[in-house]
Amino acid sequence: MDFSIIRIANIVMNVTDLERSRKFYVDALGFIETESDENNIYLRGLEEHNHHCVHLVKADKAGIVVMGYKVMKESDLDEIEKLFKSKGLKTKWMPKGTQHAMGRALRAQDVSGLSLEFYAEMDKVERLLQRYDLYKGARIQRMDHVNCFVPDVLKAYDFFTKELGFACSEYTALEDDTYYATWLHRKQNVHDQAFMNGEGPRLHHVGFWLPDPLALIHACDVLASLGYQASIERGPGRHGLSNAFFLYLRDPDGIRVELYNGDYLTSDPDLGPIKWDINDPRRQTFWGSKTPDSWFNEGTPFVDIETGVHTDLKPPTLAPRKPQHLI
Amino acid sequence: MDFSIIRIANIVMNVTDLERSRKFYVDALGFIETESDENNIYLRGLEEHNHHCVHLVKADKAGIVVMGYKVMKESDLDEIEKLFKSKGLKTKWMPKGTQHAMGRALRAQDVSGLSLEFYAEMDKVERLLQRYDLYKGARIQRMDHVNCFVPDVLKAYDFFTKELGFACSEYTALEDDTYYATWLHRKQNVHDQAFMNGEGPRLHHVGFWLPDPLALIHACDVLASLGYQASIERGPGRHGLSNAFFLYLRDPDGIRVELYNGDYLTSDPDLGPIKWDINDPRRQTFWGSKTPDSWFNEGTPFVDIETGVHTDLKPPTLAPRKPQHLI
Amino acid sequence: MDFSIIRIANIVMNVTDLERSRKFYVDALGFIETESDENNIYLRGLEEHNHHCVHLVKADKAGIVVMGYKVMKESDLDEIEKLFKSKGLKTKWMPKGTQHAMGRALRAQDVSGLSLEFYAEMDKVERLLQRYDLYKGARIQRMDHVNCFVPDVLKAYDFFTKELGFACSEYTALEDDTYYATWLHRKQNVHDQAFMNGEGPRLHHVGFWLPDPLALIHACDVLASLGYQASIERGPGRHGLSNAFFLYLRDPDGIRVELYNGDYLTSDPDLGPIKWDINDPRRQTFWGSKTPDSWFNEGTPFVDIETGVHTDLKPPTLAPRKPQHLI
Amino acid sequence: MDFSIIRIANIVMNVTDLERSRKFYVDALGFIETESDENNIYLRGLEEHNHHCVHLVKADKAGIVVMGYKVMKESDLDEIEKLFKSKGLKTKWMPKGTQHAMGRALRAQDVSGLSLEFYAEMDKVERLLQRYDLYKGARIQRMDHVNCFVPDVLKAYDFFTKELGFACSEYTALEDDTYYATWLHRKQNVHDQAFMNGEGPRLHHVGFWLPDPLALIHACDVLASLGYQASIERGPGRHGLSNAFFLYLRDPDGIRVELYNGDYLTSDPDLGPIKWDINDPRRQTFWGSKTPDSWFNEGTPFVDIETGVHTDLKPPTLAPRKPQHLI
Repeated sequence: MDFSIIRIANIVMNVTDLERSRKFYVDALGFIETESDENNIYLRGLEEHNHHCVHLVKADKAGIVVMGYKVMKESDLDEIEKLFKSKGLKTKWMPKGTQHAMGRALRAQDVSGLSLEFYAEMDKVERLLQRYDLYKGARIQRMDHVNCFVPDVLKAYDFFTKELGFACSEYTALEDDTYYATWLHRKQNVHDQAFMNGEGPRLHHVGFWLPDPLALIHACDVLASLGYQASIERGPGRHGLSNAFFLYLRDPDGIRVELYNGDYLTSDPDLGPIKWDINDPRRQTFWGSKTPDSWFNEGTPFVDIETGVHTDLKPPTLAPRKPQHLI
Repeated sequence: MDFSIIRIANIVMNVTDLERSRKFYVDALGFIETESDENNIYLRGLEEHNHHCVHLVKADKAGIVVMGYKVMKESDLDEIEKLFKSKGLKTKWMPKGTQHAMGRALRAQDVSGLSLEFYAEMDKVERLLQRYDLYKGARIQRMDHVNCFVPDVLKAYDFFTKELGFACSEYTALEDDTYYATWLHRKQNVHDQAFMNGEGPRLHHVGFWLPDPLALIHACDVLASLGYQASIERGPGRHGLSNAFFLYLRDPDGIRVELYNGDYLTSDPDLGPIKWDINDPRRQTFWGSKTPDSWFNEGTPFVDIETGVHTDLKPPTLAPRKPQHLI
Repeated sequence: MDFSIIRIANIVMNVTDLERSRKFYVDALGFIETESDENNIYLRGLEEHNHHCVHLVKADKAGIVVMGYKVMKESDLDEIEKLFKSKGLKTKWMPKGTQHAMGRALRAQDVSGLSLEFYAEMDKVERLLQRYDLYKGARIQRMDHVNCFVPDVLKAYDFFTKELGFACSEYTALEDDTYYATWLHRKQNVHDQAFMNGEGPRLHHVGFWLPDPLALIHACDVLASLGYQASIERGPGRHGLSNAFFLYLRDPDGIRVELYNGDYLTSDPDLGPIKWDINDPRRQTFWGSKTPDSWFNEGTPFVDIETGVHTDLKPPTLAPRKPQHLI
Repeated sequence: MDFSIIRIANIVMNVTDLERSRKFYVDALGFIETESDENNIYLRGLEEHNHHCVHLVKADKAGIVVMGYKVMKESDLDEIEKLFKSKGLKTKWMPKGTQHAMGRALRAQDVSGLSLEFYAEMDKVERLLQRYDLYKGARIQRMDHVNCFVPDVLKAYDFFTKELGFACSEYTALEDDTYYATWLHRKQNVHDQAFMNGEGPRLHHVGFWLPDPLALIHACDVLASLGYQASIERGPGRHGLSNAFFLYLRDPDGIRVELYNGDYLTSDPDLGPIKWDINDPRRQTFWGSKTPDSWFNEGTPFVDIETGVHTDLKPPTLAPRKPQHLI
């Protein structure tokens, strides 16, 4: 490769009621609202020096506009464009000035139909990491990862590892060793991007990093105090896969958000991918608790980078599967 | 009253396999094993100066032998005997020397058929509160409370508050204000003794105090590491009622154990009982998560203080109820 | 005794700048401001149902007006008056209506010259224990204890244990077994009232209960974020004596405040007082860290209950002592 | 550069009493002892898949043998040899088989006289990240960084950034902007290698990553329980620089060990180095607490890679400086 992707660093999401979303993301979860206008809210975590990691756009229907990857330098964008074009995949330039607080960006649709964006430049703002007086709710530190339903996990895995330079930290295999889900990273923890077998392309969830496990417990308490009990879909619990302490929420538009803390360093090439059998009861929830059906089935569609309408969904290649111990 | 009960301080339980129970209580939960022989294990928490708070007895069938209340002085026992006799309730003296490490004890069967024990004296042993090098598992600090299914909650409540001097911190009421469950205390936190409407008398659970919320999270991790996933029945979560952070486990004989931390001071008489509507979704689990049916239905029988066989169960006075939002 | 003291429940303090104190107690420490006017601020902790536990009064000079003990019932006040009068100690009634939100109160000066207040009634307000969205700073839960310099610890100890019915949980002894400091309680944890040998009567500190150790760490971070580094006098650390995790602060008038979490249950009469040798290096700070001289020497004078001027100080009976390992 | 260093991953230390060191590192701090013989102990953290990150060697005098950097591939070692030779710096090959559980290694003395080692291969062992039943003491997760006194910080900084490819996350500047201390990283957090102005080369400390802040508090408690109070040199506290929650210990040979948790992601090139003024009171300890003189002055010598004797020390280029607020 002649380019270097740093990490997942931004997500642009269509939501139907900005004020309702602000209450959830800012008042309850504790995101910093960098800026906003009547059609947009720009949010960041407490340690982030970039203008935003979540961009909420007012729209008629909820949907994921793009998942944004930050790259090392401007010229990487041109190389990435070449790669996508060489594979016959759609791309679209967003010149500097098109998107608030961002430099030039390349939008692209990948082999699974995911709407991606690559960019090297975003406005720098004050890091609030040591403004502990502003910490509230879940004390969101930064964006951590995205996880998507795709119709063909192996195809998505091949594109991200062989063409985009991602490494695999862990994966779930069926009885015959077929990949059922994969966790891929550029930065040095478990994932920037995960894929699950399922009707897709759809966002399964976007994950944010918390400073410690008690921030997650406090987030549950704050959410309940503010009446968001119904937004807590799953957890708190420990993932066997990734070792993270987790909580899954549904935002006011049903978009799934994960609060996440406690995975591990993946810098060493000899660490090697960890394989989990789909039926290992500790894989999903190390403590063995049940996962609700909604978590297996529901997701948020992407928006086509050209037409702006929801990208068509394709059925999964593999039969959808719940672990045997949950059936 | 002419006697003073201090607190719930001991539970004697029949279990079917001592070695299996030791692995659960000592290796996984971190109880201190004060002493044991081939038929008994005596356990205590890290801050306890009394010889034991859990006495496990080898038996053919699991069951609760007695729930033990510590009183201020020897003469209190005689007064309590008078009270029980005056009500026509069965009593039985256990002279000093009958029970290892304990002074004279009065066993009694209360109005619900619960097997109780009262005592003023137990051998004093070293407190290990500051032997942090011995902390492991859930870091159990001390016994906190017991919760029982009884056929008639109001009758049980009246006996404990009017005759035994307990105060009510919180209660659950049906739509017509009937008491469905009550939390009663002698020591100054939410409860020593709780009652739930249900087929009884049966122990619903015995609760132990933890030093902080992260000890509870760590307990989940240790239990899972040792293969006890199936023992985690419910939680971790926050109770609306009591405000405690909780985890419910089933020991190897199915006896329910609660790990518990974070309720509040109940010293003031003007604090008054807090009433919860049975259908308030935040009552059981402040965060709104579901409670499994087993938690509503299953319990452990008591052993008759005279015959040593399981005490007969009576159907509940009120129809068993799940909160409406769980139906 | 024919009366029953529940617990230390209130402190009235003269401060010189209400707005400056509000920033410290409300913005930084997270007390709930129940009410205030131009001359008074009334504060309470998150679990408290009483109108206030800290009453700040605007004054020219800082000083402690009274330390308030809550009693079980109105008639206890008359019995306490009798006791103080029988010992030739000054008393003064504050009729209902004299103090905002409080019933009738008895003020009294004890054998050490401490300004005390006893009362049975205070207005009830909403408990905010489960309004986690309002938690900030140190997440103060409730008042826990006061600690005072007195010229004669044994005399103070005798009065509180023999006349007022307090029990001793722990004490510090000199080489010849003389009491150098004592920790006394009515409620069931380590102390409501402690005494240290020193020029007195002076308040050494007022202590508040926190929900868990991480709330204390977060309090340090928030204090530093708001520029209060110089207010952190000692800690965080673990006390050997009491086992509490602690932080000592100096409020804007120099009044010492302790954030406190993690002591133990003292309900049992056979627990017995724990003796610490003054030279045991783990007594003051279990982890062995140094205590600054200011902590040993500085305190806040009391205000005479009749004259309103600072109570005269007397030199200590015993020579002031630092532990040998700190010299 | 034609090579890629991954991270600091190992330290080899001469210690004078292996059994005494084992008690400290294994029993108190909770390192996993992978293997040992009469002259060596090999230790690793709970998440580490490499055979060891600390290698203790029995010797007459304490000293640092090498600080080990792991590289991406074998050929990187040859390129690094070329670099060191081109600068006239000493190198020495340790062929595979020379060091237990390791492949070929290149030892080298850098521009400050630091003894370094580079290697691509170490035996893989079982990761114990999810063996929570084995967690004890400080629950050490992995090696994080080393910090060294060097006579000329700018020279050390230039060599590591310009020749070895490290990036600078934070630095301390004197009033005239001279670098006084620098924090440099290859992996994506605040540092693998830090330099402080001082008599050198000496190791200031080796830092290990903890899973959360409560593990650090628990480590203090366990150390105190086992009699290691005198080993706690500084903390717990929050660094302004790096934002980490820290504790500094001295091992039985006086080698300084830092327990460390809570810095931030440094993947983005536009994050840029953060400058701290040496007199900023929040730089060293965000909460403002004092640092003992020993922390500023004491360190451990390195062992010459050829002669095996302690490397000669040189006086610092800049006058040793304590922050003004500490003088």
